[in-house]
Order: sequence, then C-alpha cells, then structure tokens
Amino acid sequence: MTLIAEMSSADHQTLLAKIRSEYEAFRAQGHKLDMTRGKPSPEQLDLSNGMLALPGNGDYLTEANEDARNYGGLQGIAEARALFAPVLGAPADQVIIGDNSSLAMMHDSIVWALLKGVPGSAAPWSKESAPAFLCPVPGYDRHFAILEEYGFRMIPVPLTGQGPDMDLVEKLVEDPAVKGMWCVPKYANPSGEIYSDEVTKRLASMKTGAPDFRIFWDNAYALHHLTEKKHEVANILEACEAAGHPDRAFVYASTSKMTLAGAGLAFFASSAANVKWYLARAGKRTIGPDKLNQIRHVRFLKDIAGLHKLMDGHRMLIAPKFAAVEMALESRLGGTGLAAWTKPEGGYFVSLDTLEGMGSRVVALAKDAGLALTPAGATWPSGKDPKDSNLRLAPTFPKLNDVQVAAEGIALCVLLAGLEKQEAAKA
Amino acid sequence: MTLIAEMSSADHQTLLAKIRSEYEAFRAQGHKLDMTRGKPSPEQLDLSNGMLALPGNGDYLTEANEDARNYGGLQGIAEARALFAPVLGAPADQVIIGDNSSLAMMHDSIVWALLKGVPGSAAPWSKESAPAFLCPVPGYDRHFAILEEYGFRMIPVPLTGQGPDMDLVEKLVEDPAVKGMWCVPKYANPSGEIYSDEVTKRLASMKTGAPDFRIFWDNAYALHHLTEKKHEVANILEACEAAGHPDRAFVYASTSKMTLAGAGLAFFASSAANVKWYLARAGKRTIGPDKLNQIRHVRFLKDIAGLHKLMDGHRMLIAPKFAAVEMALESRLGGTGLAAWTKPEGGYFVSLDTLEGMGSRVVALAKDAGLALTPAGATWPSGKDPKDSNLRLAPTFPKLNDVQVAAEGIALCVLLAGLEKQEAAKA
Repeated sequence: MTLIAEMSSADHQTLLAKIRSEYEAFRAQGHKLDMTRGKPSPEQLDLSNGMLALPGNGDYLTEANEDARNYGGLQGIAEARALFAPVLGAPADQVIIGDNSSLAMMHDSIVWALLKGVPGSAAPWSKESAPAFLCPVPGYDRHFAILEEYGFRMIPVPLTGQGPDMDLVEKLVEDPAVKGMWCVPKYANPSGEIYSDEVTKRLASMKTGAPDFRIFWDNAYALHHLTEKKHEVANILEACEAAGHPDRAFVYASTSKMTLAGAGLAFFASSAANVKWYLARAGKRTIGPDKLNQIRHVRFLKDIAGLHKLMDGHRMLIAPKFAAVEMALESRLGGTGLAAWTKPEGGYFVSLDTLEGMGSRVVALAKDAGLALTPAGATWPSGKDPKDSNLRLAPTFPKLNDVQVAAEGIALCVLLAGLEKQEAAKA
Repeated sequence: MTLIAEMSSADHQTLLAKIRSEYEAFRAQGHKLDMTRGKPSPEQLDLSNGMLALPGNGDYLTEANEDARNYGGLQGIAEARALFAPVLGAPADQVIIGDNSSLAMMHDSIVWALLKGVPGSAAPWSKESAPAFLCPVPGYDRHFAILEEYGFRMIPVPLTGQGPDMDLVEKLVEDPAVKGMWCVPKYANPSGEIYSDEVTKRLASMKTGAPDFRIFWDNAYALHHLTEKKHEVANILEACEAAGHPDRAFVYASTSKMTLAGAGLAFFASSAANVKWYLARAGKRTIGPDKLNQIRHVRFLKDIAGLHKLMDGHRMLIAPKFAAVEMALESRLGGTGLAAWTKPEGGYFVSLDTLEGMGSRVVALAKDAGLALTPAGATWPSGKDPKDSNLRLAPTFPKLNDVQVAAEGIALCVLLAGLEKQEAAKA
C-alpha cells in the first residue's frame, strides 16, 4: 500500500469509502472480542494442569524436612529459591518468595519505602515533599497505578528500542527527589524492549541525587520468548555491585505467566542488605508464604530444564497469535504511514502507535465494532498519553481465530481513523 | 498446698530446698521443649491432608464458571465467600478473601489507613501527629508489632474477663488521636477472653473523638472451641450498624488454624463502604488472590457442617493438652498464691500470671531447663509488661507427653521463682 499522505484527494476519497464500508461490514458481524489484558489462554494454563493434584496426599516435607503445611518460612523454601535463582540472577539466599503476585511485592516495597525508608534512606520517602519516579513509556499501567495511588510524581522517559533514553535518565536522577524508576528489562510491557548491556550498565553506574534511589527491575518476562532466540539481558544486581551501588536494584519476577496466572509464585531478589530489609518488613506483615504452593511448583517443574520446556510449550501456543497480528497489521497498514508497531520477540504485547491524536478514536471505533481494546493512554502515567497515539494489543488470551479477526478489525479501525484524520487535514 | 506467704520460715526453707532439688532434677533430664507459639501440631494438620491433592486435575471452574487458574477475582470466589460468611457474620458480598494470612490483611488495612485514610478520614492517618491505638492486655504480640513498626502510640487497656475495661475505653476514645483498637473477641490470645454482649454493644455505640475510628475485630478463634460449649459473641458489624456507626468495625478471620496453617485462607469483612475501600486499595496491589486455594477449601470442607466437623477433630486433639497444663499447674500451684492462670474454653493459649516481677525469672529458669517459653512481656505493647508477670503458654504444638512434661517444668519454675522471691522478701 502506498503512503496515504501522498495519495491524490480522489484516491483518498475512494479508499476512505472502501474502508468505511469494510468497517461497517466488520461491525455488522456482531463480534465480541477482547484484546485488553495480558492473560494466558486456557490452553496455556492447561500446560500446568498437572499441578492441580500436587503435591499429593502425604507430600508436605521440604528438603530440609520442614512441614510445609505449618506456619513459618518467611523467605520461602530453599529448593524453590534454588530453582528460580537463575531466573532472578541472584544467589538463592538473596531470593524471597512471596504469595502469588509480584505486583504485590512491588507495592509492598513502595509502601515500606514510604513509611520506613529503604537501606540508605535518611528518612521515609513519605517525608519527602514530592517523591518522584521515572516511568519509561510506553509502560505497564499497573506500575503507574501504584505510584498514582500514593501520590508520586511520575516523570515519563521515552524508550529507545534498547531501553530508556539514558542521557535523559542520567540528567533526571540528579534530582534527589527522584527516588526510583520502573524497568521491565526484557520483552517489556508493551514495547517488547530488550535493554542493551550498555543501558543496564549505565543504570547501575549513574550518579543519583538520592542516596536511596532504587531501580524496580520487573523481570516479568524473563523466559517468555516468542522465537527460538532466548534473549538475555545483563545482570542488574551484578552490574550494581560492580559499579559500587550494591543496593540500587530491587528485582522482581513471578511464575504467573509460567505456571498458573492466579496461583503462581512471586519473587523478590536483591542485595543482602535489601533482602534483610524486606524480610524485616514482611515479618511484621505475615508469618510466612504458602509453602505448599512452593512445593507444588518444585514437584511439577523439577528443575530449570523443566521450566524452559514449559516455556517452550507457551511459545508454541502464543507465537502464532503474534504472527496473526503482525500479518493483519502488515497487510492492511504496511507502507501506509498511518501506524507503526512492534514485532516483539517475547512477552505478551504488541505496541502500536497510530497517528497523533488517533489513539482514542481507534479504541472507540473498535468498541463500536465489538472489539475491546485497552483504553488509549493506559501505557502512560495517569492514563494520559500526550500524543494520544499508543495502543497496547494483547493477543495471548483469545483463540487464534479470534485473534486473526480482532487484528483485522484493529487494522481496519486504524486505517479508518487515519484516513478520516488526513481527510480532515486536507479539507 | 497452703498459701506460701503464710508459711513459717522453716517450712518455707524446707519447701524451697525441695523444689530447688526437683527443679535441678528436671533440668538434669536435658529436655528440649517448646511452648512458645500457637501453632497447630502435625496431627492437627493431618486432619486436612485431604487437601493436598485437591482440587485435582481438571477441577478449576468456579460455580460461576470462571477459570480459577487465571488472573482476577479480587474479592474471592462466591462459593468460598458464602461458605465462610457465617463465620464472619457478614453477607457474602461483604466478605473479601485474601491470601494465606489474616495478619497480612490487618497490616495492609493499617498501612492503607496511614497512607490513604479510611472512609470518614479527613486525612491519611500518617498526617496525624501521633495516631494511637488501644491495646487490650494481655494481647497478641504480632498485633502490637505492626503498631510499633509504624510508630503508633499504644495504650494498654486491661481485660476484665468479659472483654476490655469499657469505662476506660469509653474515656480513652474521646481523644481524636485514638484511631483504632485491637479486639480478639472470642477465646482471645492469650487470655481466653470471651467478650460479653454488653461489651460488644458498648464498643459499637461509644462516642469516639476520631470520626474514622476503627475496631480491628480479629475473630481468629471463631470456631476454636475447647469444650462442647460453642460460645458465641455478638455480631459486631450488626451492632455497629444498629448503633449508627456502620463503618466502625473491620472484621478478620482465617482458616490458618482450621485447615493448614501456612496454606489457609484469610478473610476481611465489613460494611459495604469499607469493603469498597479495601477492594480499591487491594486492586492496586494485586490482580487477585489464589482462587485455586479457595476452590480447594470449598471442595474439602463442602459446607459449614464440614467446617464444624473439622473443628471437632481439632478439639479432640488439643483439649487433652490444655487439660494436662491445667492439671500440672493446679497440682503444683493451686492454693499457693504464687500464680493465677486461665482455664480457656477455646483458642490456643493459657495465660499465666506470676507474682509481680517474676515473669522474666520464670522464663530464664525454664530456658535453663531446656524449656522455651514466649519471652516475658510479649503479651504487652513493645514487649514491656509493667508488672513483669504475664506468661503465655502455647500447648497445641508439642506432643501430649511433652506438654505434660513441659507443664510440670513450668509449674516448678513458677514455684521456685515465687519461693525465692518470698524468701528474699522475708530476709
């Protein structure tokens, strides 16, 4: 397809009429499709159905001969920490296992930082007049929602394709009010970003105004490859240690998109000092996590090879859905100049940028055609995308057929919105 | 035995020598016993071993046909809320299911009150100069530890045998800085207290200086009877509603001492406004709880009758341990005037008061004899019992034999400490 902007007015009119009629036809089909959330599909969850009857009657002893049914074991059982330590890039004794949500561990870290401070804090963060966070954009709406809940100032930082714009980051962190920064270093939500080693190194070594600055390194998609290439990112904990900032990074991960989304394990890993700090706080909150679910994971996965094999199973199920999205977008929008989108090699999302000011219009058109999309702006702090252009597509949950239809519908909506906009501009 | 204080000096000397030698003999036996924590025994946990293989392969749909393996369902699945609603004394739609720890739900309530305020708050509690809590004593150390962690002023209030001293409570809550109060209304930790209907009614109807005052009603032992008599306490939510303070009470409970201590369900129940508030906060923290564990509980317990039957099983296992403690204390200390202790009809503890200033001495003597007791003072805010007299005994976890030996040892330590003290007083 040719660049729409260079079309003659007549051709533009003809195309607009054609697309409008295709959109109407699509709408008339009465779809009910949902591409809003990065949820695994039932078929993905089926991969872990073997867990539903585990650990099995009478199986409740840990390798250290502790009774996993009872209270205690705040840090998590050793064999589960050992199994996931390589995913976190930390020794097992610097890994903590939480309940089923890494978001909850991030939330708690922030709440405790606000009320107690972190190692190196002169005072609890809530005593600062306006603590601020750097928010690489587009980013994860739930990250931003925690900051909004607790009144942080959120400073968007553009992503470059290799991680955040580090020149800008290095400048912004000079401000001592900047206390932290979100990072999804691999297959980021939603850009698919893979942080380069250089970016990781600069994050670890940059000078920060706040002595208690923390990188919230949410490695949510550590093993969530969409191709045979298993991308690696540099180890942030080791990089921080090497740069003389051993306590700078809080690392998070979970098995929510490995085993069972609602019944997985969440992890926190960091320096010995940060782990001690986290455990001291967590020990006021709970007597310990669900250790039976930890045993359940160990029995099911067995070892890191088991985990990789499981992730291969996910890839087989979801890679075709991403391919379907790519195919529909490329065939409808390729070369039109109306949109750009990512071709992620991992993770759960496609990030699509429409023409400026068209994001909400596309979502509205889609909604009208029975196609639920994440609200425009969701990938920006406070839900406000200044260009109203970024959309997050989540193709994992619907069936492949539905993804194909939905992607076709989205492409039509983008096309229609773009043509309308350019027509208005020409008029 | 006769009142020690009325003994002749010679008789006192003789008895002291005899008890000292018995204590030394006990010490020489090289015991290693632990009466510190209110943990269920392995035999109690065995009652719920049937859960270990549940829900079973392929069983993951809720009654509403939701996939419990996936994300979501923040409030908890309807059938689990319905099953436990009578325990909480609230309609199922005013019940929230958390993860495995009701302590965590209490902690989060306090943290959110500090950072956001509760319904009716003019400002977050952390903006108050020194928010205060009433702490009925003796009480639960982990309740106090949360308050200490976040810098609350803790005001001890004596328990009367029917709940807290309400004349004092009514006076103290006139102070608008008093934001909340702990209550363990049934079989309280450690006093075994059962709040009278009158106390509950006064708590619900009293005038508080703080418009956002909250009762933290930790009904931890709702069904944990030690006799055939299933004591009831008045419904605090209904009492608050009737008194025109519908949002006053936060109610908590868990299955930690019903099913599996480390892998149970925790509950929060309150007014519609408080439930909405809690869910809004919790929704920033997590996408949802472990719904498979909720299904697991529903499949295992089936209905409220199943739950009561399970609790009967617990009673059969632990009532003899409480009887053993009572027998040893009574036979050694009865009539001596050296100690008083509770005869609880439910719960997990015996509360023992030594002569003033003897609590730490008894714990030290016990430790020396291989017998771990909860530190003296643990039942008071900040671990400081002004009389140094209250001890908390937890007989559920050790085997019956060990409980008998431990109780005998404790009685000896109390006797020895008391005789020594009175000898010193006479000298």
